[in-house]
Amino acid sequence: MVPTIGVFDSGFGGLTVLRALATRLPNARFAFLGDSARLPYGSKSRRTIARYAVQSAQFLVREQNAEFLVIACNTASALALDAIQEAVPVPVLGVIEPGAEAARAASRTGNVLVIATDATVHSHAYAAACQARGLRALEKACPLLVPLVEEGWTTCGGADADCAAGESSQQAKVTAEVIRIYLAELLADAAALGMNADTLVLGCTHYPLLRPLIERAVPAGMRVIDSAEATAESAARLFCQHESEESSPDTQILATQTQVARIRCFATDSVEKFESLGSRFLGQPTGKVELIDLGG
Amino acid sequence: MVPTIGVFDSGFGGLTVLRALATRLPNARFAFLGDSARLPYGSKSRRTIARYAVQSAQFLVREQNAEFLVIACNTASALALDAIQEAVPVPVLGVIEPGAEAARAASRTGNVLVIATDATVHSHAYAAACQARGLRALEKACPLLVPLVEEGWTTCGGADADCAAGESSQQAKVTAEVIRIYLAELLADAAALGMNADTLVLGCTHYPLLRPLIERAVPAGMRVIDSAEATAESAARLFCQHESEESSPDTQILATQTQVARIRCFATDSVEKFESLGSRFLGQPTGKVELIDLGG
Repeated sequence: MVPTIGVFDSGFGGLTVLRALATRLPNARFAFLGDSARLPYGSKSRRTIARYAVQSAQFLVREQNAEFLVIACNTASALALDAIQEAVPVPVLGVIEPGAEAARAASRTGNVLVIATDATVHSHAYAAACQARGLRALEKACPLLVPLVEEGWTTCGGADADCAAGESSQQAKVTAEVIRIYLAELLADAAALGMNADTLVLGCTHYPLLRPLIERAVPAGMRVIDSAEATAESAARLFCQHESEESSPDTQILATQTQVARIRCFATDSVEKFESLGSRFLGQPTGKVELIDLGG
Repeated sequence: MVPTIGVFDSGFGGLTVLRALATRLPNARFAFLGDSARLPYGSKSRRTIARYAVQSAQFLVREQNAEFLVIACNTASALALDAIQEAVPVPVLGVIEPGAEAARAASRTGNVLVIATDATVHSHAYAAACQARGLRALEKACPLLVPLVEEGWTTCGGADADCAAGESSQQAKVTAEVIRIYLAELLADAAALGMNADTLVLGCTHYPLLRPLIERAVPAGMRVIDSAEATAESAARLFCQHESEESSPDTQILATQTQVARIRCFATDSVEKFESLGSRFLGQPTGKVELIDLGG
């Protein structure tokens, strides 16, 4: 039987990680849970986030038989990874460590900037993961970026198909200005600390949809690290290791690429919204999203 | 004993209603609950919102002995007022009816615009309340306005005291541009429907903090209705009626104005954030906010 990889986020953002994972493991089976009834985690406390994340992880392992979990949510990875690892009997990978590792590989100066949600920044999980790798990191919360992505103000006001390539709508100009303000504040703070930063980590799974706007806003030569891509890379490698230790050769899921990854999506609220928004993050239709109740 | 008025919101926004209420009923006792662990309600389903709102209302009535409830949350008023009224044995007032009533009093053309959260708009509660008063209403969801208020991008980037009067920060310019885009879309839709709208209802308790920017953005002559003020006005009137029917004259809370309203604030999460953000909405320090657990 093909093993299932459970992917969890507080909302839709983690679908950017699933998208990158499905490209790398086309023969795997995926169960994605978006805890949309209780999003956003980014503004909540560690205690609350851990409780929600553990319930979600248990659903994926107990009800969906996930043999490997990816916490595709920066906030939950920052604040609840330990709690999740204690609560379930399968390997669990978060997004912080892979993001920090990719920053280490990219940075020459050893000075790194991180943008993320409030809760991720206040946890200083990226700073700690960077410090453990000999990097110096400065983090900044950018609370407006998630709602701007969810409103679709990323390129052409949400109606991409109607826009000429490269055209920037008035909505996207607002988003570009918000990014400019946040980055200017962050770069000024870094300069005041004498940091010669050359790498920017996108520490939120919503931010890959802003990558073109962010790359236009950073100083020339600055590397932009997408933690969704970095996590998918690590997860695919770890998962294949795990599988080759545990399974017979016929379950090797990297062996052939004859089929498209099988994805089942679950949400705790608002299935319609998940289906319409989620496809933008997943880069393909989510299929029918199943509503589940985790209580609370 | 002085009776307690319970005021409930999903977050901090309802403190604008409490502020307006405390001005009108300076001798009353207030218990405010912000269900901050589960905010925002605006993007959730009716079923989930009703469950959360009923738990919150029951806390105020059962644990805080509230004899009168104000649902200072447009989303909960739109989607859960019936459920709350069934669940508690005290009078319950929402924000929709007072807002619609104030619009009726203000409008000469009978054509009204409403801006609110996603869930409030999708409920069409304002359209129904306006229609019941012979008004025609067009509603628009403005999901970016709440995060802009919470980020403090309303006048001078959150540091009002540092700014000269009337000066507009680059942050406030972003907010003004977002408001301009939303209103331009709304006015174009109204024009296409042949509506000669002369009144705009602020259908979210966060929006009073944007009132100066909104008033600058509306066409000349358009009236802006603040549903927080309208609700406080109705609540104070209803509460005094209720009290004069139920109580002896010595409990008349409008009789003297010798003291400041006594306010106790409760939150389900992130007490520090509530205290720092809440004072901007309440217009005075919230005092020590007490953390409670409603489950979930």
